[in-house]
Amino acid sequence: MRLVRYRTESGVRSGVVVTRSGEDGVVDLGDEPLTAILATGMHAVRDAVADAAASLPALSSLRLEPPVRPGKILCLGYNYRGHVPDGVDPTADDPDFPDVFVKTSNTLGGPADPVVVPPVADDVDYEGEIAVVIGRRAKDVRIEDALDHVAGYTILNDVSDRSWQRRQSQWAMGKCFDGFAPLEPWLVTPDEAGDPQDMLVEVVRDGVVTVSQSTATTIFSVAYVVSYLSSVMTLEPGDVVSTGTPQKLPDAQRAHRPLRAGDAVTVRVERLGELTTTFIGGPA
Amino acid sequence: MRLVRYRTESGVRSGVVVTRSGEDGVVDLGDEPLTAILATGMHAVRDAVADAAASLPALSSLRLEPPVRPGKILCLGYNYRGHVPDGVDPTADDPDFPDVFVKTSNTLGGPADPVVVPPVADDVDYEGEIAVVIGRRAKDVRIEDALDHVAGYTILNDVSDRSWQRRQSQWAMGKCFDGFAPLEPWLVTPDEAGDPQDMLVEVVRDGVVTVSQSTATTIFSVAYVVSYLSSVMTLEPGDVVSTGTPQKLPDAQRAHRPLRAGDAVTVRVERLGELTTTFIGGPA
Repeated sequence: MRLVRYRTESGVRSGVVVTRSGEDGVVDLGDEPLTAILATGMHAVRDAVADAAASLPALSSLRLEPPVRPGKILCLGYNYRGHVPDGVDPTADDPDFPDVFVKTSNTLGGPADPVVVPPVADDVDYEGEIAVVIGRRAKDVRIEDALDHVAGYTILNDVSDRSWQRRQSQWAMGKCFDGFAPLEPWLVTPDEAGDPQDMLVEVVRDGVVTVSQSTATTIFSVAYVVSYLSSVMTLEPGDVVSTGTPQKLPDAQRAHRPLRAGDAVTVRVERLGELTTTFIGGPA
Repeated sequence: MRLVRYRTESGVRSGVVVTRSGEDGVVDLGDEPLTAILATGMHAVRDAVADAAASLPALSSLRLEPPVRPGKILCLGYNYRGHVPDGVDPTADDPDFPDVFVKTSNTLGGPADPVVVPPVADDVDYEGEIAVVIGRRAKDVRIEDALDHVAGYTILNDVSDRSWQRRQSQWAMGKCFDGFAPLEPWLVTPDEAGDPQDMLVEVVRDGVVTVSQSTATTIFSVAYVVSYLSSVMTLEPGDVVSTGTPQKLPDAQRAHRPLRAGDAVTVRVERLGELTTTFIGGPA
């Protein structure tokens, strides 16, 4: 199932996307957060769909919000293996542990929100990532139990200013500009998302595919990462764990130029859909 | 003024500490957050004190909570100059920019909460710091205006596990164990806190002063840091900016051993008071 949050005059509500006669409509699920609805089991959602009116508001007519308001946005650095020549062990450079950093709450953006490129940020880049949404509190969970704590998956663009990121040892300033974490509208439940270690992550810029790599090539699986994080911190429903970005393809690395006002970037992930973010200029 | 949050049967309330006949009592300020009360001006607090009943609940009888629930906890790495031999320029090693990292919301602790040392954390250390509390939204504020956005000051112990901190390039895992950011009970308003660049920060462990250094030796002033952060992210009321720790004194560096269950650490700061944190064991 694809679950959404959408804005109405009386506030933000939850909904589930259903397709009838080829048209996407939304069945209302009330004003509780998606994670609270999922915590009671998917049967409530199925019942709402079964009882839904014949006529539904069209998905395209709704103003979609981020699917969750995470208390924490945890991100990974290097987590996809690079391309190596034939005969070279691709795991040779694997780090022993994930490299974890935090994006602050001001970075959260909705799927329809453009990202403002501030005048002080002149080296802005995209990172198309699969974001795991925590559904059930997780502390010290084992790897084999970790996916039971996942409500579903969405897409996050870990927008970063490389110049600010490299000013000092810690990356926070380059990662935490306002709006630098737009989320896809959907929370896709695990039954529909399928195996998180078998998804193709792609980025399209100016009509060119600049990233294309499967999660089969990640160093640390979703289950491992959730378990690892939970050995240190309590993960709460709605928290987001973004699983890192693949490297750009060699041609895209050579052709790369920083994002500017007027640019648009689409991140698309197999079975999760896509997130297109437009970039606009900020006040001088 | 010293402002507090305290727990009652009907929820957490705000209060201001008043001293009468040598006894500290608390005047109730209602259930709004301290930053909301301060935003309307200190006259409301003064009026409440003037109108207060003759008999007040004793401060020592109240269960004190963290003075704020920050949406963001931003911290600085290296910000105090080290000790250098006579004739050596102490500013010679100053970095160009602050090194900024984030502590997640699960790290927040109240002044009465012990910090659990989990079995997986065997290299736990303290960092006694002055924490700035944002009072008024700040984005792109100039250095000369930055202190107008500060509600006051408190003390934060930036508890850190060095081994986890150094596993990878980013420090989040060593910084973000549950409860690793205990806050002093007080929010001390700027009129009482005085010049933030003229405060003595000390740490006492096992009866020995292990840290003793003035904020006069910081590289980046509070005003500079607030302005700098606001050039990237919107700071909201209640957000906390922790200003870094001085190095341990040479004898304390030599004698250092990781914190274990049964230890206690007191951070004290001129005009801000003190925060004593006890460390207890966690489940194996």
